[in-house]
Amino acid sequence: MKISIERGTLLKAVSQAQSVVERRNTIPILANVLIEAEGETVSFRATDLDIEVVDKTLAQVERAGAITVSAVTLHEIVRKLPDGALVRLTNDGVSDRLLVEAGRSSFSLTTLPREDFPVMATSEYAANFVAPAKVLRRLFDKSKFAISTEETRYYLNGVYLHVSEGEDGRVLRCVATDGHRLARIDAPLPDGAENMPGVIVPRKTVGELRKLLDDDDIEIAVSVSDTKVRFATPEITLTSKVIDGTFPDYTRVIPMGNTRKLEVDAAEFAKAVDRVATVSSERSRAVKLSLDEDRLILSVNAPDSGAAEEELAVAYGDEKLEIGFNAKYLLEIASQVDRENAVFMFNSSGDPTLMREGSDTSAVYVVMPMRV
Amino acid sequence: MKISIERGTLLKAVSQAQSVVERRNTIPILANVLIEAEGETVSFRATDLDIEVVDKTLAQVERAGAITVSAVTLHEIVRKLPDGALVRLTNDGVSDRLLVEAGRSSFSLTTLPREDFPVMATSEYAANFVAPAKVLRRLFDKSKFAISTEETRYYLNGVYLHVSEGEDGRVLRCVATDGHRLARIDAPLPDGAENMPGVIVPRKTVGELRKLLDDDDIEIAVSVSDTKVRFATPEITLTSKVIDGTFPDYTRVIPMGNTRKLEVDAAEFAKAVDRVATVSSERSRAVKLSLDEDRLILSVNAPDSGAAEEELAVAYGDEKLEIGFNAKYLLEIASQVDRENAVFMFNSSGDPTLMREGSDTSAVYVVMPMRV
Repeated sequence: MKISIERGTLLKAVSQAQSVVERRNTIPILANVLIEAEGETVSFRATDLDIEVVDKTLAQVERAGAITVSAVTLHEIVRKLPDGALVRLTNDGVSDRLLVEAGRSSFSLTTLPREDFPVMATSEYAANFVAPAKVLRRLFDKSKFAISTEETRYYLNGVYLHVSEGEDGRVLRCVATDGHRLARIDAPLPDGAENMPGVIVPRKTVGELRKLLDDDDIEIAVSVSDTKVRFATPEITLTSKVIDGTFPDYTRVIPMGNTRKLEVDAAEFAKAVDRVATVSSERSRAVKLSLDEDRLILSVNAPDSGAAEEELAVAYGDEKLEIGFNAKYLLEIASQVDRENAVFMFNSSGDPTLMREGSDTSAVYVVMPMRV
Repeated sequence: MKISIERGTLLKAVSQAQSVVERRNTIPILANVLIEAEGETVSFRATDLDIEVVDKTLAQVERAGAITVSAVTLHEIVRKLPDGALVRLTNDGVSDRLLVEAGRSSFSLTTLPREDFPVMATSEYAANFVAPAKVLRRLFDKSKFAISTEETRYYLNGVYLHVSEGEDGRVLRCVATDGHRLARIDAPLPDGAENMPGVIVPRKTVGELRKLLDDDDIEIAVSVSDTKVRFATPEITLTSKVIDGTFPDYTRVIPMGNTRKLEVDAAEFAKAVDRVATVSSERSRAVKLSLDEDRLILSVNAPDSGAAEEELAVAYGDEKLEIGFNAKYLLEIASQVDRENAVFMFNSSGDPTLMREGSDTSAVYVVMPMRV
C-alpha cells in the first residue's frame, strides 16, 4: 500500500475511527483502524464489534493494499502534524510496519494483518429511506438525555426509533426514558420508512451518529433491520447492532388527561430552577413548585445548607397546586425547549407531568414528581 | 449585618475565597467564608489553616456585623445571579441564617458564628518590599512547573524564593526542582528585600498567588518572615505559611562547564518533540537527540508501538552527540521560552544539560538526561 493524502482529510477520517475504538481493549485488533486503498479511494474502518464506522475518502493511491494500525496513535500523529501537510502512508507488503511520512517527520508504526480485522457482516435491511441530517439531529438530540444508564434495564439504554401514529398521521418517532422522565419526539415519516421495524439504538451509537449530523445541508441514508441500523453520508457509513430487547409500552406513561396548564418563559424558568437548586442536598435535589394565579414560586428546603425561593410571573389560571421535582430532571427538560415558552400540563402532585414547547405536540416530555 | 453589594464585585471576592477552601473538610468552619462588614467596607476571609486570603471591597453597609457561610454555596449562588444585580446580605443577629437576596431570588443560608473562624495570627515580617505583578508573575510562572509532587520530599513541594548573587549583582530568585529538572529565575532585587530570609512557598500558595498577578499595572506588597509570606494588592491579602524545611543547595546541580552549544527555534523544537513522543511508551517517554553539524535528529523507538524520527535544522558546531531525555521534561522546559531561540548547553550524554533563552541568563533550566 502506498498513498498520499492531505492532513486535514486524513484527520477527519481517523477522528471518526478512533472515537468508535474502545480505550480498553482485551482484543488488540479492536484498537486498530483498517486502512484499505484501492482505485482512487482509501477507506478507514474501525469497530468495537457492536458499531462499525467506515470513512471513504479520495486519495492519491500509488499502490493498492490494506493494513491495520493503532487508531489512537495514528490519530495523535496526524493531529500533531502541521496544517496543510501532505501525508504519505506506505506499507511495503513485506515488513509489518506502516510508514507515516510528512515533511521531515517520519513514523514507523507496528501493524496487524488485515485478515485479523473483524469486518461486520452485511445485512438485508427491511427498510431504506433518506432523511435530512437536521431532522435526525432533532429526533436524537431532544430524546437522548432521557436514556437510562441502568445496565440492568438494558432495553432502556438507547433511543427507541420507530414508526407511530402522530396527531396528523404517521410519524418517525424517537422515544427514550429512564423511568423518571420520558422524551417523545416526532418527525414527518420519510418515504420508504413505512415498514421499518422499531429498533432500540444504543447510547454509544447515538453519540457516534451525532458527528455525522452537524451539516445542515446533507441527507442521511438510513437502513433498518430487526438487528441492525445503518446511517450513511456520501463519505461515512455507521452501522450498529440494535439492543436486543422490547421497549416498554411508553404510551401508557404519557398523561393525556392533565388539564392544569402552566406557561412559562423556558430560559427564565431554567435559570431560576438552577439558582434555587444551589442549596439543595446532593442526594435529593428536590425543588418545589407552588402555583397560584399567574404566579410560580420555586423553592428548596435543605436542613444542612439552608433554603431558597424565587418567584416567576407565569400564565396559570387553575387552582393552587404544590408539586415537587428533581431539579436536574426539570433543568434537562427545560433546556430542550427551542422556542420561548414551555407549557407544563399538571394533574395532581402525585401524577406525572407533561411538558411541551408552546403548542407544538411533536416534542413531548414527561417527568415524574417527587414528594417534597 | 446588612449590606448591599454589586453582583460582579461580590463574585470576584467570593471566587478568591472559595478557591482557597479545601473541598473535603473535616472541620466544618473551614468550608466557610467569614464576612465582616464595618464602615464602608466588607471583607471576605477564607483559610485552609495554611493559607489565608482576605478580600476587602467597598459596599453599602447599613448595619455592621460578621458571620460565616459556606464559601462554595455562596459562590455558586452569586455566580448564577444575573449580571448587574444588586445583592443584599442580611443577618439579623438573632437568627443563625444569612439572607441573600437579589431581584426575586432569596436564599437563607445556614451559618456558623464568627467566633469559631480561625483567623491567622499576625506576624512580624523581616522584610517588606514592593514588586510589580509582572515581575512576580514571571518568577513564579517560569519556575512552578519544576515543583516536586513527591510528598516525602516535602522541602521540594514549593518554590524557593530568596536573595542571591546574579551575574550583575544581587537578585530576587525563584528556584524549583523535583530532582529531574530545575528552574532558576532571577529578577532585579527590589528595595527592602535585601534582608529577606529564603522561604519555600508551597505549591498551593503559588497557585492562589497567580490569581493576584494578572493585572500588568499593579504593584504587589510582599512581606517575608521565617515562617510566613504575604502578598497584597490594595484589595486582596494572601498570607501563607512557608514550608518548614531546608531547600537543598541547588547551585551544585547547575552545570557551569558545559561547552557544547545547540541553538534551536523553541517552538519548532517543542512541536517536533511532541510529535515523535506520540509513539513512545507511556512509562519511559524517552526521546533521543542526535546532534551533528547544524543538524538535530529527534527519535523515539518503542517496541510496542513503533518508531518515530524528525530532523530539525539547528545551529550546532561541536562534535557528534547522542543524548536522551524524558519527552515531558523537554516539552515543559521548551514551553518556558518566550523568545525565539532556546540554547542548550550539553556536556556528555550522562551529564545534566543546561537550557536558557537566547543569551539571557536570568532564566536558566537544568534537565537530567536518561539512558536511551
